[in-house]
Amino acid sequence: MTYVPGSAPDLDAADPLAPLRDRFVGTESDLVYFDGNSLGRPLRATAERIGGFVVDEWGGRLIRGWDERWYDQPLVLGDEIGRVCLGAGPGQAFVGDSTTVLLYKLVRAALGGAPGGRDEIVVDTDNFPTDRYVVEGIASELGLAVRWVEVPADAGITPELLAPALSERTALVVLSHVAYRSGWLADAAAITAQVHEAGALVLWDLCHSAGVVPVELDAWGADLAVGCTYKYLNGGPGSPAFGYVATRHLGLRQPIQGWMGHRDPFLMGPGYDPAPTVRRFISGTPPITAMLGLADMVALIDEVGIAAVREKSVALTEYAAGLAEELLGPYGVTVASPRDPAVRGGHLNLHHDRMREVVAALWERDVIPDYRDPGGLRIGLSPLSTSFAEVEAGVRAIATEFSERVGRS
Amino acid sequence: MTYVPGSAPDLDAADPLAPLRDRFVGTESDLVYFDGNSLGRPLRATAERIGGFVVDEWGGRLIRGWDERWYDQPLVLGDEIGRVCLGAGPGQAFVGDSTTVLLYKLVRAALGGAPGGRDEIVVDTDNFPTDRYVVEGIASELGLAVRWVEVPADAGITPELLAPALSERTALVVLSHVAYRSGWLADAAAITAQVHEAGALVLWDLCHSAGVVPVELDAWGADLAVGCTYKYLNGGPGSPAFGYVATRHLGLRQPIQGWMGHRDPFLMGPGYDPAPTVRRFISGTPPITAMLGLADMVALIDEVGIAAVREKSVALTEYAAGLAEELLGPYGVTVASPRDPAVRGGHLNLHHDRMREVVAALWERDVIPDYRDPGGLRIGLSPLSTSFAEVEAGVRAIATEFSERVGRS
Repeated sequence: MTYVPGSAPDLDAADPLAPLRDRFVGTESDLVYFDGNSLGRPLRATAERIGGFVVDEWGGRLIRGWDERWYDQPLVLGDEIGRVCLGAGPGQAFVGDSTTVLLYKLVRAALGGAPGGRDEIVVDTDNFPTDRYVVEGIASELGLAVRWVEVPADAGITPELLAPALSERTALVVLSHVAYRSGWLADAAAITAQVHEAGALVLWDLCHSAGVVPVELDAWGADLAVGCTYKYLNGGPGSPAFGYVATRHLGLRQPIQGWMGHRDPFLMGPGYDPAPTVRRFISGTPPITAMLGLADMVALIDEVGIAAVREKSVALTEYAAGLAEELLGPYGVTVASPRDPAVRGGHLNLHHDRMREVVAALWERDVIPDYRDPGGLRIGLSPLSTSFAEVEAGVRAIATEFSERVGRS
Repeated sequence: MTYVPGSAPDLDAADPLAPLRDRFVGTESDLVYFDGNSLGRPLRATAERIGGFVVDEWGGRLIRGWDERWYDQPLVLGDEIGRVCLGAGPGQAFVGDSTTVLLYKLVRAALGGAPGGRDEIVVDTDNFPTDRYVVEGIASELGLAVRWVEVPADAGITPELLAPALSERTALVVLSHVAYRSGWLADAAAITAQVHEAGALVLWDLCHSAGVVPVELDAWGADLAVGCTYKYLNGGPGSPAFGYVATRHLGLRQPIQGWMGHRDPFLMGPGYDPAPTVRRFISGTPPITAMLGLADMVALIDEVGIAAVREKSVALTEYAAGLAEELLGPYGVTVASPRDPAVRGGHLNLHHDRMREVVAALWERDVIPDYRDPGGLRIGLSPLSTSFAEVEAGVRAIATEFSERVGRS
């Protein structure tokens, strides 16, 4: 298969996953959606059953729903995400809270379990803002230092870049598996081993990899992880995050001691006694309604297999990158993402100084990428809901916008 | 109107709010639901429009929904809850996270703003478990002391009980406006003034009062508050909590520094600079889908007025209490709640040593109260979805269960 302009129909015809696109809401329209990495499209199945959930489960079972199903749902769904998307055996993953809150809880938990005398948290400068802000806040409150690792804007963290930051002072390393701007795909296995070699723990942010890139938390030997569910797991706006704590760390304590993390929530007695399982990382009443879309998407990824999802993801991003070079390169647009798919996740960043106005104009014509400062147009290609034709239409629309603004070089 | 067995039909006929019951899912069935204070029934409007939300807003607007509406939704809905249910002027309330997480954030924020040298947090022994656990965890991590106030199991906190616990060491007082077991309704205005007199701050837990009992946060001079939305605000299982921070405290800092609390979330630059508004108390991406049911119920309460809701709530609980004394008293069941409606919220606690097995048997016959140890059957009467006939059927069913187990005294 060749990735040249005009080959979209052939690519779609040859794509065994192409028929799945119809399962998503809105794919019948001409809208070009390049933001599946910010908010995935809903499955039609979710739209159809969510009203039924309200009537039959919430309205029909009422408070009995907690005993019958909901109480265990954060762990049941955590195990499913773990099995299908994270390479995580049962009893380690859970769903609840926002990514930010889970980052706070798990960073605090990790620091409570770090070897004594270690006073540095290592983060890269291009990590997602919330990761940086959470770590800075915790470091400030605990009297620790943040050790920053500078990474190139069009790539990301490597063992070589990380090495100088690791020392006997390192307590915890917080990194994104896929960088939110460049799409850089870190060598998580190598970095996890490297961090362990330095005697520290590592927490992986999987927001931009869960559901699109194979993740192997257990095989990497990862310590902790968090991730979004509204991106490639199509959970809907603000759907709850997932967390992962390796079995060997289930004794760690997190700071937000709530009734749902208690050994026996309905005992309601004096004193907090944390559950001996991963349930101890849950705090309050879990958001059940908000888990429905996510559960549907995990089931679909399970049906297809994450390897096939990744294969299509690579094909889509390769096609987008090739088209961008061919059609947008002449206007001075550069691919500010790794060109080698082996070190690239599911999205691409295209750079140009005038990209902010171009993105605004694209939105007006129903072509929806993300803008990320400075000068970045982000193409996030959710593999099961995106066609090659959509990619080609979108890149051509970007070219049209540039042709109206900028001369070809 | 008389509150004697058999008067339910007359009471329902005279109830101007009775027709509203039809607006809730499931009210056409014979099920007796005494647990609206744990999980309110869904509105039919919510069931009908939630699928449409998935298709038209999430699926139709996709990422554009954030710019168009969702980004401000936690504050817009916070203001609505504030206006309709909390007596709170705009710019002080917000929606997001679980009650437990909000308790953590606001207790930590309050302690950061407490006068120096104060090292005690005051809590009553019958406060909801999560409030106690959160406070104990924070006290432990910050090296503060928890000062416990013992309260009677069938009543709750009063200025007289609180007085000996307050001193120049008190930093913060955390109390429930309505006690989760007894239903005791605290004199929040008097207690707030008393706490301020002692130079401390007060955080009110409104989980069991928001939407059923008039709350006047601004008039009380309250400092901070949190509350559930899945109880009397019918938001659905695990719907997000609300928080309130009085305008004069908007400079406080909360510890979970996330991108959505930043002054400019999409700047994504280095360093956390909190929003100058109540937005700073938000951490991660807010749970939009989970706010739909809640928004519908707040609109309904606005239509009716919280005073009318309270009036019906008092009538329902008075009827339930009267029936319980008449029909259950002979079996040794006692009303373990205040008998005076002026100091009682929207639920009643009935006590008997064999109540656990009675509640289990009631569930089998589609009569659904809550069980709360020790020996408590909790009748939570959501005013707009509960009829007097339902109350009478439920209390008669309890009587039948006791008649099969216990002799009349």
